[in-house]
Amino acid sequence: MGEPVVCTTVAGLREAIAQRVAGGAESLGLLPTMGALHRGHLEIARRTRAENDLAVVSVFVNPLQFGPGEDYESYPRQLEQDVALLAREGVDLVFAPDVREMYPDGTPVVSVTSGAAGSILEGATRPGHFDGALTVVSKLFTIMAPGPGVPFRAYFGEKDAQQLLLMQRMVRDLDHRVEIRPVPIVRSPEGLALSSRNQYLSPEQAGHALVLHRTLSALAAGELTLEQARRRVAAEPDVRLDYLVTVDPANLALVEPAPGTLALVAAWVGPTRLIDNMRI
Amino acid sequence: MGEPVVCTTVAGLREAIAQRVAGGAESLGLLPTMGALHRGHLEIARRTRAENDLAVVSVFVNPLQFGPGEDYESYPRQLEQDVALLAREGVDLVFAPDVREMYPDGTPVVSVTSGAAGSILEGATRPGHFDGALTVVSKLFTIMAPGPGVPFRAYFGEKDAQQLLLMQRMVRDLDHRVEIRPVPIVRSPEGLALSSRNQYLSPEQAGHALVLHRTLSALAAGELTLEQARRRVAAEPDVRLDYLVTVDPANLALVEPAPGTLALVAAWVGPTRLIDNMRI
Repeated sequence: MGEPVVCTTVAGLREAIAQRVAGGAESLGLLPTMGALHRGHLEIARRTRAENDLAVVSVFVNPLQFGPGEDYESYPRQLEQDVALLAREGVDLVFAPDVREMYPDGTPVVSVTSGAAGSILEGATRPGHFDGALTVVSKLFTIMAPGPGVPFRAYFGEKDAQQLLLMQRMVRDLDHRVEIRPVPIVRSPEGLALSSRNQYLSPEQAGHALVLHRTLSALAAGELTLEQARRRVAAEPDVRLDYLVTVDPANLALVEPAPGTLALVAAWVGPTRLIDNMRI
Repeated sequence: MGEPVVCTTVAGLREAIAQRVAGGAESLGLLPTMGALHRGHLEIARRTRAENDLAVVSVFVNPLQFGPGEDYESYPRQLEQDVALLAREGVDLVFAPDVREMYPDGTPVVSVTSGAAGSILEGATRPGHFDGALTVVSKLFTIMAPGPGVPFRAYFGEKDAQQLLLMQRMVRDLDHRVEIRPVPIVRSPEGLALSSRNQYLSPEQAGHALVLHRTLSALAAGELTLEQARRRVAAEPDVRLDYLVTVDPANLALVEPAPGTLALVAAWVGPTRLIDNMRI
């Protein structure tokens, strides 16, 4: 398998996609990432590759989705390593623009917003996060749209449950010609949901972080009430619970735990914020 | 010239555009309107027709861009007459969806916003207006996008100066593959800028409304200071001035009148709000 072509400009990406479509590519798949790829991403890249003639992975650390005091500056950037990993998965194109390419006029005047639905749960502690993510993904969808007749699919992990739901809403509400394909959470053998931020965890903290998955599993099995589950997470050393709730996966409304609902948890483990979720 | 094809569904419009493009149409032009077409619209429709193989006019009274207490319910709706007028201009397609077709899930959860730039000038008295207009136009751009290789142009009158600027920003900020083509203001022989809302004016009010154009002209000719111009508008019977300012047309920042700046005026004439503008 050859190396992916790395495009760093919008025009270059459009040109590369147009060429492949003209050359017979009959479907286009996108995996949007911020790089620092781990096994979770590669699992999704593999699906993107398998399900589409043309497989594109974007690698862009999007300043709009980081709040003040968050880890924008220190977020891991390792493009060369990412490209090597994606080469092994047979990805065709990597889109790796810099900030000035994506935001040539600085912070956008016109942007995409999720209003109230983006200011609860993760949005409550990360104001502006979802609007930033929606804006950059909307741009990617519009930049890459291969035109009528060429199916276009975008892949999002189920780990970021609120993000996935909002992306699905965006596609409906703004008529993007793309199909969102959700991908199940990839976990370590011990159950920790894979995340770029896991590399911030000490081995000890990684051990404490397992309480999230264990508690969700117990909740899903009906062994704990919601309140007991919250207490169990909060009792873990070096873990500070933000929220543990069950929601209607269709609209994120808070509901009691019941089959078909989705349990969402967010907690800091040491200084590192982690999220996880599980269908009840 | 034949009657335009009237599409009432998103799928129908996409299909009609795809067919015409497959049949050889090499460019696509869109004039977005809320109907109640007047000579100003028809002037733009003519340009849209002349400059594109496929000319589309959308007719949709967009609830999102009306505030509480505004004239959404009473806004004139006269599709049959509009289609007849557009037939005379040789327009190919009219897109006339109902509200449930454009917003099948009700008010969008995810939408387009212009933030601060949309809450000054017109936005100050019409909160949410520009976000509503940007959202529906973004949807139209995405729905209609003919694909790479087919130039897509959208036509906006210069009368709505702030709207035009925000649409241009939206295209840059969200990467819509469309070129915005501004169209000069069309005026009555007496100078009144054409607007659907002019039909609310009594003959007497229409006379008073001429003060807007006369004052802009005097300001542009250097015969009045900004303050004198404001007093002149405010002194007209049955006219209540909202704002009369000069701005940098690149970013809407308030500046002193000078060559190259844009004078913007908004006033109520009787109960009807009118706007106008002129390059200095």
